[in-house]
Amino acid sequence: MLAKMKDRRTIRKYTTQDISDSLLNELLEVATRASNTGNMQLYSVVVTRDQANKEKLAPAHFNQPMVKTAPVVLTFCADANRFVKWAEQRKAVPGFDNLQTFMAATIDAMLFAQCFCTAAEERGLGLCYLGTTTYNADKIIEALSLPRLVVPIVTVTVGYPEEIPEQPERLPLEAVVHQETYQDYVPESIDTLYRDKEALEANIRFVQENKKETLAQVFTDIRYTKANNEYFSEVFLKVLREQGFMK
Amino acid sequence: MLAKMKDRRTIRKYTTQDISDSLLNELLEVATRASNTGNMQLYSVVVTRDQANKEKLAPAHFNQPMVKTAPVVLTFCADANRFVKWAEQRKAVPGFDNLQTFMAATIDAMLFAQCFCTAAEERGLGLCYLGTTTYNADKIIEALSLPRLVVPIVTVTVGYPEEIPEQPERLPLEAVVHQETYQDYVPESIDTLYRDKEALEANIRFVQENKKETLAQVFTDIRYTKANNEYFSEVFLKVLREQGFMK
Repeated sequence: MLAKMKDRRTIRKYTTQDISDSLLNELLEVATRASNTGNMQLYSVVVTRDQANKEKLAPAHFNQPMVKTAPVVLTFCADANRFVKWAEQRKAVPGFDNLQTFMAATIDAMLFAQCFCTAAEERGLGLCYLGTTTYNADKIIEALSLPRLVVPIVTVTVGYPEEIPEQPERLPLEAVVHQETYQDYVPESIDTLYRDKEALEANIRFVQENKKETLAQVFTDIRYTKANNEYFSEVFLKVLREQGFMK
Repeated sequence: MLAKMKDRRTIRKYTTQDISDSLLNELLEVATRASNTGNMQLYSVVVTRDQANKEKLAPAHFNQPMVKTAPVVLTFCADANRFVKWAEQRKAVPGFDNLQTFMAATIDAMLFAQCFCTAAEERGLGLCYLGTTTYNADKIIEALSLPRLVVPIVTVTVGYPEEIPEQPERLPLEAVVHQETYQDYVPESIDTLYRDKEALEANIRFVQENKKETLAQVFTDIRYTKANNEYFSEVFLKVLREQGFMK
């Protein structure tokens, strides 16, 4: 199984084969075994199978085709709503409308999501995480009717793989692991750690296609621009306030 | 392997057996295969093995004993520092000092952490997530010398299990799964979904031991109080500002 995890790759193209309810539920059931904060399970997942509903979600994900072509779209949410409703119904006075609860719920949602994904891949499914969920959280809240104290964190499209793409590179392990304390990077270590990534044929082509001078510029000027990051940060902060997590 | 994931439980007591560097690195290497935002790998992990360093970390985790007794303590961090240093060294102008980048980096850190944990458990290790990391992020930043644009999100203690505790209950699957749109909870559904949890012998005892009227009150009055949640929310917001994520 470690071999499978090590060999995994993101799958963006799916066959027309559907995922049965029983398999999906089995995988979600496994995922509920993930660790979570104080066993409060501060998460929810919304399952989208209906084509019309996928089309409602698609613009929020900048119309990435996987949203419409995957048999199942899962929106994993930080959710304090259920717990708070339970508490209020049991003569308890919760103070969960704040940033710490949001962080705990985000962590819970991510552990649940990732356990689902590992289990799904083990069963031969392929999947793709969409990072667009926090960008357009407001639109997703509307599309899925998410109430107060629920915020979508990440979306995963799932299906049977139509193709197995090449596995993308990763930085060498020492780039992300620090022993005992954080050893900050210096120009020499940055050069060393990013050398192989920058030398990859695919990345060199990527820089040329985007008419940039360096690979980093493709990220800062095109993919994750300052203007977009700042605009969507404001949107997300507004979402946190409106959903009741910024008391 | 799904059976193993389904049968997992948090391990808080470890034997004295150490975890070899080669095993730890193999598991971390597997974890780097987790999905991440745009392959930017916006995460880092700090490995604490040294006893003196564990003792420095312990108060930040309210002296939970696992921090001192586990052979390895891992602090998983949202990290935009490495990427930004690389970008600046490559004539790129990053705009990564904002909430969206923090969310992307948090998601990356969590996927990396959870993949590590599933791989570690597959290899017979036991582990415990500590939710105290976002409470005392400021103290952890100091103990681990985390620079600007790095924030600790979650800590995991790891070792070989000394005991296999009972598996805690979970809510029924339908409590956390919504079909197509979010079906908000009503008093009847709350009663149904929480009935088994509330009827558990261990939870009834838990309520009595804490001299409370309901299980929910144990959470709101003792474990996750409004006052604590609000205090630590302010601390965490200050950390986000100081680490440069709230431009």
